[in-house]
Amino acid sequence: MYSIDELQEMIEQAIEKQSFFKAPAELYEPLDYTLQQKGKRLRPVLVIMACDIFDGPIQEAILPAIGIEVFHNFTLIHDDIMDQSPMRRGKETVYKKWDNNIAILSGDAMFIKAYEFMLTHNSERTIEILKIFNQTAIEVCEGQQFDMNFEKQDNVCIDDYINMIRLKTAVLLGASLKIGAIIGHADARNADLMYQFGEQIGLAFQLKDDLLDTFGDPSVFGKQTGTDILSNKKTYLYLKAFEIANESQKKELINAFNISNPTKKIQTVISLYDQLDVKAHTEEIMKVYYNQALKHLEAIQLSDQKKQQLTTLAEKLMVRIS
Amino acid sequence: MYSIDELQEMIEQAIEKQSFFKAPAELYEPLDYTLQQKGKRLRPVLVIMACDIFDGPIQEAILPAIGIEVFHNFTLIHDDIMDQSPMRRGKETVYKKWDNNIAILSGDAMFIKAYEFMLTHNSERTIEILKIFNQTAIEVCEGQQFDMNFEKQDNVCIDDYINMIRLKTAVLLGASLKIGAIIGHADARNADLMYQFGEQIGLAFQLKDDLLDTFGDPSVFGKQTGTDILSNKKTYLYLKAFEIANESQKKELINAFNISNPTKKIQTVISLYDQLDVKAHTEEIMKVYYNQALKHLEAIQLSDQKKQQLTTLAEKLMVRIS
Repeated sequence: MYSIDELQEMIEQAIEKQSFFKAPAELYEPLDYTLQQKGKRLRPVLVIMACDIFDGPIQEAILPAIGIEVFHNFTLIHDDIMDQSPMRRGKETVYKKWDNNIAILSGDAMFIKAYEFMLTHNSERTIEILKIFNQTAIEVCEGQQFDMNFEKQDNVCIDDYINMIRLKTAVLLGASLKIGAIIGHADARNADLMYQFGEQIGLAFQLKDDLLDTFGDPSVFGKQTGTDILSNKKTYLYLKAFEIANESQKKELINAFNISNPTKKIQTVISLYDQLDVKAHTEEIMKVYYNQALKHLEAIQLSDQKKQQLTTLAEKLMVRIS
Repeated sequence: MYSIDELQEMIEQAIEKQSFFKAPAELYEPLDYTLQQKGKRLRPVLVIMACDIFDGPIQEAILPAIGIEVFHNFTLIHDDIMDQSPMRRGKETVYKKWDNNIAILSGDAMFIKAYEFMLTHNSERTIEILKIFNQTAIEVCEGQQFDMNFEKQDNVCIDDYINMIRLKTAVLLGASLKIGAIIGHADARNADLMYQFGEQIGLAFQLKDDLLDTFGDPSVFGKQTGTDILSNKKTYLYLKAFEIANESQKKELINAFNISNPTKKIQTVISLYDQLDVKAHTEEIMKVYYNQALKHLEAIQLSDQKKQQLTTLAEKLMVRIS
């Protein structure tokens, strides 16, 4: 069994070998530009890790794993146009570096390339894998649409929010594990449990991300904090605060969202969040999802040693703060 | 064997039964809006016709045929954003009726739905079909990128142009026939010949479209004419005119492209095209591709009666002007 670092290195090396470059350059350059940016490669690592813990043929899982990463990168390219995000991972996003049209079309091409990687797998379960991939892809689009809708919507409730992050983020983690498990010859029940484990971890992971955006240490988190507050984003923190605030606190919150000085706005909202114990509330619900994930993991028919690998990864994702 | 009208009716009825509607509405409404607009349904008709002439199970070809139509519609949604085309088939385009973001994301969703339709087919040749579909999809993107590049490029030659329309238009006609033939249990050689027939017809078809845009009768063509001239689009007509014009004619052409009065601009360019016999030159090259298509058709191992169906369709596509 490989360690997480070894799996990550395996993915990084396999990605380095990929080059999409051919004519027309405007279509393919953004693919290399995006994919060659180093990251934690979480999703492809999940694919090959899942294959590995079922003692599967890890080499057969590598190209489909890259397919998942390519798909993830495609969603980022299109999301960045829609969200008008000029920077990602410290670099200009594709629409910013090139233009909108190139970002639309090279995103499309990237999505097609993702399928190409998925289609390199050839077994009697290929169609099953492709169906999971396809179902996940449409759900990720649904998640992005809900996310955009929520910006203009006043009556977003916590359940809506959880469903949105499930679609936008969690299902792809679930699918990565399930696809890897299938390539590793896991049976249907174990593969489904892997999916559920991944989905629940994905929810906890996104809630952690929301927490870090407000309460994280920028030098550890690696991103600017306070961006959700500045953009009045309806995160779990925001929705929970409104749910439990009394009338005067609600007014204060609404007033705070209109503060134009960024530092003052962040400080005011955080101070209200502190009064309302929003951090603790978020950690609590995060823990609920985390524990549900572990329950699914328990039910998987694998040795404790194999399961430890997934627990380690889950812990790693959860303790990103401190 | 079904007539072309019967095949068209079969597709239209199958499409009418499809509804993508679910939440979030912003993601799915544009899919119904686009797909339910009646058109000639050329590509899906090619799929089921190809299946039919090989005496294949036509019912099994219908959903993949819709997949091809859905894919084609996806490319139109994204192309319309890139080309800033506000109208199509007499209706507002998706980005115009909704907005850019909805057009990007619902286009993505439509592409995923296209794969979903392709994945309904389940036989030992499904992977082969998916690979053809995927290869075609990436080529269509390449074609669109080349098309956009040519707008800013001064040194486009006729070969570049033919390659661009091959990618952007012709390969999908080839792939439609090949996929239909495979579902109809055609062997590899016959399936390839069907592709080549479709690709060559596709080239002739696009050249015809270029001709109609300039020389067509708007009441028969069903579209405004002269749009290529007004946008200085580097069509075959334009490139051929420059190739054969003498120095003074070249100057006249360049001057004509800068005329601001639309009617005068169209008249001036057409009069130069007439001097240079551009219409006849285009018809000549169109005929070359048309005859190449018929040669591929001849080589297919099918009865003449079966082949007649494809010849009829090809003729129908070619005599749209009159």
